[in-house]
Amino acid sequence: MTKTNPGRFFEDYRVGQVIRHAVPRSVAEGERALYHALYPARHALYSSDEFAAASGLDGSPIDDLIAFHVVFGKTVPDVSLNAVANLGYAEGRWLRPVWPGDTLRAESEVIGLKQNSSGVSGVVYVRTRGLNQMDEPVLEYVRWVMVRKRDAAAPAPETVLPDLAGAVDAASLIVPEGLSFADYDFDLAGEPHRLDDYRIGEKIDHVDGVTIEEAEHMLATRLWQNTAKVHFDATNRADGKRLIYGGHVISMARALSFNGLANAQMVVALNAGAHANPCFAGETVRAWSEVLDKAPTDAPGVGAIRLRLVATKGSSGDFALKGEDGRYAPEVLLDLDYWALMPV
Amino acid sequence: MTKTNPGRFFEDYRVGQVIRHAVPRSVAEGERALYHALYPARHALYSSDEFAAASGLDGSPIDDLIAFHVVFGKTVPDVSLNAVANLGYAEGRWLRPVWPGDTLRAESEVIGLKQNSSGVSGVVYVRTRGLNQMDEPVLEYVRWVMVRKRDAAAPAPETVLPDLAGAVDAASLIVPEGLSFADYDFDLAGEPHRLDDYRIGEKIDHVDGVTIEEAEHMLATRLWQNTAKVHFDATNRADGKRLIYGGHVISMARALSFNGLANAQMVVALNAGAHANPCFAGETVRAWSEVLDKAPTDAPGVGAIRLRLVATKGSSGDFALKGEDGRYAPEVLLDLDYWALMPV
Amino acid sequence: MTKTNPGRFFEDYRVGQVIRHAVPRSVAEGERALYHALYPARHALYSSDEFAAASGLDGSPIDDLIAFHVVFGKTVPDVSLNAVANLGYAEGRWLRPVWPGDTLRAESEVIGLKQNSSGVSGVVYVRTRGLNQMDEPVLEYVRWVMVRKRDAAAPAPETVLPDLAGAVDAASLIVPEGLSFADYDFDLAGEPHRLDDYRIGEKIDHVDGVTIEEAEHMLATRLWQNTAKVHFDATNRADGKRLIYGGHVISMARALSFNGLANAQMVVALNAGAHANPCFAGETVRAWSEVLDKAPTDAPGVGAIRLRLVATKGSSGDFALKGEDGRYAPEVLLDLDYWALMPV
Repeated sequence: MTKTNPGRFFEDYRVGQVIRHAVPRSVAEGERALYHALYPARHALYSSDEFAAASGLDGSPIDDLIAFHVVFGKTVPDVSLNAVANLGYAEGRWLRPVWPGDTLRAESEVIGLKQNSSGVSGVVYVRTRGLNQMDEPVLEYVRWVMVRKRDAAAPAPETVLPDLAGAVDAASLIVPEGLSFADYDFDLAGEPHRLDDYRIGEKIDHVDGVTIEEAEHMLATRLWQNTAKVHFDATNRADGKRLIYGGHVISMARALSFNGLANAQMVVALNAGAHANPCFAGETVRAWSEVLDKAPTDAPGVGAIRLRLVATKGSSGDFALKGEDGRYAPEVLLDLDYWALMPV
Repeated sequence: MTKTNPGRFFEDYRVGQVIRHAVPRSVAEGERALYHALYPARHALYSSDEFAAASGLDGSPIDDLIAFHVVFGKTVPDVSLNAVANLGYAEGRWLRPVWPGDTLRAESEVIGLKQNSSGVSGVVYVRTRGLNQMDEPVLEYVRWVMVRKRDAAAPAPETVLPDLAGAVDAASLIVPEGLSFADYDFDLAGEPHRLDDYRIGEKIDHVDGVTIEEAEHMLATRLWQNTAKVHFDATNRADGKRLIYGGHVISMARALSFNGLANAQMVVALNAGAHANPCFAGETVRAWSEVLDKAPTDAPGVGAIRLRLVATKGSSGDFALKGEDGRYAPEVLLDLDYWALMPV
Repeated sequence: MTKTNPGRFFEDYRVGQVIRHAVPRSVAEGERALYHALYPARHALYSSDEFAAASGLDGSPIDDLIAFHVVFGKTVPDVSLNAVANLGYAEGRWLRPVWPGDTLRAESEVIGLKQNSSGVSGVVYVRTRGLNQMDEPVLEYVRWVMVRKRDAAAPAPETVLPDLAGAVDAASLIVPEGLSFADYDFDLAGEPHRLDDYRIGEKIDHVDGVTIEEAEHMLATRLWQNTAKVHFDATNRADGKRLIYGGHVISMARALSFNGLANAQMVVALNAGAHANPCFAGETVRAWSEVLDKAPTDAPGVGAIRLRLVATKGSSGDFALKGEDGRYAPEVLLDLDYWALMPV
């Protein structure tokens, strides 16, 4: 019997199955510092314990996307080792801040299955939850991936398609306990724009670009204990390129969006997301955003802004997204739909 | 109205103007570890809490140059986003150690302005102070940069040139409270040489060289939240090279200077500095030092040494600096004049 | 007199000489995070404070190999600055966990000397001990290196060859105080295989590969304050390559071995090791293991497994090691013989 993990194939999943993912991970100041080294992250709430304290928190939490990447990484050996493609995200919510010293683990429930007409693969839908050391949920999201079958002759499972919301309802966003932007310092945060200054439909060119290096995306992807070999092994492709973890592009784009969205402090929901085209080292990543919606919250001075965040290896100033055929333009890397908290 | 930061142009500065820079930053063990990964830093006081405690401190402070880079990085969006060149430094002093867990912010006062004869740019002088979470100053320095005008037709401001000291007077150096080298362990520090062993005019070849990679200087520059796009965006230059943040060269040279100056433990003043030539990935950085001055301090066993630190992409053994025309030799990257504390 | 360290030459060593190495180093959460970024490390005991606590420890210790690299790095300026080759390891034992916040230093005793027949170099054997801030030993090992003579005409010392064990006796392995695998969670650890599931002689292909970048091995090697210039200076070789620190390959292979040996949690002894061939950036490192021995320990549920860990730049599935001539195959990078603790 082989001792190594062959990964699960499409026929290994059953609707209702709960997978407890391996290797819990403690996160602390080291992960925070590395996040600042890997991405041009400047949102003040995650940069300064003092700014976070002035916003009613006990200190600066671990970046929301660190929590996402760590939880996502845990699922890879069980969900996407034999995946052909990461197809989408839905119903993602951050439920509780992660603090330095917390230990995260993850569980996923299979909530949908659909064999492809080709018969050689199928789509698996999982709802993943990240939990801290008190077994409190910190994060949940649905993701669906196309997974190869081990045996094309294996019978197709009954098709079950989950009923997924097009976006997280603003009323169900979780604002961290105690958060208040009543005494928000716009100077220290870096920009004067409050929620009222943004209008739905407004597009923002984030201007700056970062050229990606192999060493950097591998450092990041390993840090999240994401083991998918395509990210690390140059012998996997004829051209010797390593496919960059899609989450690296998410974090890069989110960090770049500081320039124009410095006050979109906390990510609280992931409505949808598509890794439109693969990203490779040597490409220069830029980003633009579109304001999709706005909503109030019950917390003092805190509103919610729904944003489309687009990463591109082309220009960020022409706001290119899809062609007339409805397909993503070839330079678009990421199309992410999320809610963030911002001072009203 | 654009939401992104266009940076200030020459005509946006006024003498006496105080700029409160954005995005305070907490620094801790993670930044310390990354500093050791990015630079061959070995000065014992910043490597070992025990060594620092034996020197009368509460533990190992955050490296002086981390404090400098963080404070400098804060100023970039307000001072040097439209800068053509970083021209000089003066009157820099470290005023108080930064401890793990401290949060730094920065303020700058415009202390001088001089439009260039070309009329398209001018020189801006700022005195920058770094402050900790108790609003105690930890660092101050003057820097002057050449900044583009938005509109060449804008009228020239009255020329104000600050009266800057050629070097920080030894009597005004600040020795951290409690510091004592009375029981200094030269074995643990790595070299036997005390202040008395160095003579003014002595030159030291630091021998070792480090070849620079794009990934490394970008990790470093992001870590200090320095957002100048020339450091990250390969599309900014026809040759696809990224200009390396001058502070990366400062830290590299200072770390290399351990070999021969292992006991120059703490940097306490920055007298002057010139980034003589740009540095690019693939170049191998070496360093040499010249002893410029020596002075006593009031702290037990603690003296001060004034050093010229030169980084070069050529040989460090021929001590090349300037040609007969008074211009820096093409291989010289950095010419830095600083005071450090050393056991007498 | 030169102020820089020329390193010791063969004739500078005497049997019985004790060298107290310079620059103690505090290690904490930052080093842990960087270790996860540099290597695909996933052993649960070093990833999760909760998993470590459930195993009877006070929290997650600093990875055994971080301790090894830090201690090894301390010895380089005194032992291997003028070394031609790092020839072998023996009698290595981890004696006590290193905790975040501990400060490590190192001492070496010269235990053997043998001049080579060429007369231009000789072999130096040292027993190195790592100590924490309470002067408690945390690690010891013997290493021997070939060191150049300063002067070929210098007389040969009397040959002294230490009597070294072929492997650390299982009875002398040190199990960290309190360690218990009685309530071991195999799901969280990532694999179901316990000591009883492995048979002596079994070989395991760890499958995954990681392509090495210059930036990464330099970050790692600097982090351990290993200053050997061959690792950093591209001008040292005609082909511009930097020789990768052998310990980088050790950590990479050990991390890759998670896939098949997820439960070989703690490294407790280093029986032998050979850096069979040099490793350079651009090569893809893979690993395989062979079970050499098994032994019980006195700790609840804890057994010991003796493993051969082989790193290769070729296939890990053909288990290549040596040719018919007894020499290492050209693709083999590392042949390491160690004991690890595993649930029985």
